[in-house]
Amino acid sequence: MPSNTSIVYLKHPTEFPVPGEHFDAQTNKNFSPVLQDGEVLTRNLVISLDPYARQIGQPLDARGVAEVIESKNPKYPVGSIIHAFVGWEEYTVVPDLPTTRIIPEARESKLPLSSYVGVLGMPGLTAYAALKDIGKPKAGETIFISAASGAVGQLAGQLAKAWGLTVIGSAGSDDKVDYLLKDVGFDAAFNYKKRSTHDALKELAPKGIDIYFENVGGETLEAALDHMNNHGRVIACGMISQYNTSKPYGVKNLMQVVSKRLTIRGFIVADFHEQYFDDFFRDVKDLLVNKKIVYRVDEAKGIENAPKAFAGMLKGENFGKQVVKVADL
Amino acid sequence: MPSNTSIVYLKHPTEFPVPGEHFDAQTNKNFSPVLQDGEVLTRNLVISLDPYARQIGQPLDARGVAEVIESKNPKYPVGSIIHAFVGWEEYTVVPDLPTTRIIPEARESKLPLSSYVGVLGMPGLTAYAALKDIGKPKAGETIFISAASGAVGQLAGQLAKAWGLTVIGSAGSDDKVDYLLKDVGFDAAFNYKKRSTHDALKELAPKGIDIYFENVGGETLEAALDHMNNHGRVIACGMISQYNTSKPYGVKNLMQVVSKRLTIRGFIVADFHEQYFDDFFRDVKDLLVNKKIVYRVDEAKGIENAPKAFAGMLKGENFGKQVVKVADL
Repeated sequence: MPSNTSIVYLKHPTEFPVPGEHFDAQTNKNFSPVLQDGEVLTRNLVISLDPYARQIGQPLDARGVAEVIESKNPKYPVGSIIHAFVGWEEYTVVPDLPTTRIIPEARESKLPLSSYVGVLGMPGLTAYAALKDIGKPKAGETIFISAASGAVGQLAGQLAKAWGLTVIGSAGSDDKVDYLLKDVGFDAAFNYKKRSTHDALKELAPKGIDIYFENVGGETLEAALDHMNNHGRVIACGMISQYNTSKPYGVKNLMQVVSKRLTIRGFIVADFHEQYFDDFFRDVKDLLVNKKIVYRVDEAKGIENAPKAFAGMLKGENFGKQVVKVADL
Repeated sequence: MPSNTSIVYLKHPTEFPVPGEHFDAQTNKNFSPVLQDGEVLTRNLVISLDPYARQIGQPLDARGVAEVIESKNPKYPVGSIIHAFVGWEEYTVVPDLPTTRIIPEARESKLPLSSYVGVLGMPGLTAYAALKDIGKPKAGETIFISAASGAVGQLAGQLAKAWGLTVIGSAGSDDKVDYLLKDVGFDAAFNYKKRSTHDALKELAPKGIDIYFENVGGETLEAALDHMNNHGRVIACGMISQYNTSKPYGVKNLMQVVSKRLTIRGFIVADFHEQYFDDFFRDVKDLLVNKKIVYRVDEAKGIENAPKAFAGMLKGENFGKQVVKVADL
């Protein structure tokens, strides 16, 4: 039986987590799990790093693509490739959960396996369903997307564009802005480290914003509220600037929610799964296969590099959806 | 022809408006309007004071109940009592607006005329429609209402109670808290000047809040967010603490909108008029006539006292819906 290296969450950080201090690799050299009925043992191939979900003393959770190498569940025979909740580790015992899904085409797919935890996984569903359900986009409207080159933002922007909106994005480097403008097809984009979101929106959204796809929080939210039109919608997807700080930013202009009759709505993607997953998967896979959309992935190599990649992601150092390649198929 | 005293808005205040400085009475001793077709001249009986709507150099706007004393509009003959947009003044020339409504029963009504600008007027519709449309109340849930003895809050609480909710209110004096508990029938109420909203909600809402009827903003909103349950709804009706301040409060815990999947939605009552007015008026009038609900009005006497009453209202000195009695019927 192989050894199993897992990334274990050690303690809560007060600011950004530090690899080695807040989470670290631990190797179990005598990994010999005995499966219960319904369980499968997976060899993990690629996992998604997401800015949430941490329980102290446990391997961190992740959606991943994995190969079943031992099975007590007839739905997932040995050799099948599944999309499931695994851990930040090489091997995981996966219980019989309704969120596990077999990927029949995985061994022949022209799409990289990381697609199934990115553009065709939870981040993709988030972009698609939240835009439809909360954003209620209408052709001719303007959307502003923060963290626009990230896991959710880059797809949200391309869907909004396809649905007839003017799309404006912010990102944290000139390279990311170039990617948004040249490869992704945003109408406008700016580097929020070089100019204030407030000034940029004044110039780039002269007719105001109808939808704000919120991934950042804090000052960015405050600036967006100032530029929203009456009846605007804020898709509160994430507020990454506020996750790992002991000094959360105070948003001072919430009066505009009243005066402009805005809606701000939070959600988790599981809320949308039943209603939207099939449509999403069909529509976005079709766009991908026909090369109508692009989707950039930032792939760290090896489970031992997951903490560093995660810490970097919280600081915006990743470029595209952050995943970790754990093993080759 | 009579003289006409109006309250004119002179300049924007930086903090609270001061009678004489920011608005003042002006008397036109030669008031002799010539009506155009469709217009009526009204003798104003009672007007509503509301914490919004000010244009410099003009008499302030208000919903009011008024007697038609001259008419070029066959819909509103001389002698009819109407509910209309008038001014903070004794007499107003009212154009032919769709928001003008005749009150056929006014001369025989057992309800005070102020009812038509309060519990049966815009504040009442606000409570009824916003609670239904944004609050989506379900029996067994808990609602928290700030400014709970005010124009909107006291009715919202009684409707929520009638619909099976546990109702908690905050107000700014012990008298108001007594009124909420003894006369209005709130399940719990507290004086926010004597204890923090955070501590009070911890004790009084041990199962958390499902709906927050927001009239105050700032720290109160922040405390309410901390106590909201997953999928909670915030009815952003007003943020009176934030209207007249040069130092708006920064709300630091909007992350909870994401993590608890909250909805915060602003509105203006006109958004709801068409869909809800008839149901509202029938339901609430029935409750009132059958003495199933109470509704406290704070009545200033004489148009010249409107500025003082308005300034007091912004500081929470009113007790109940603030109106000005301009003249007897």
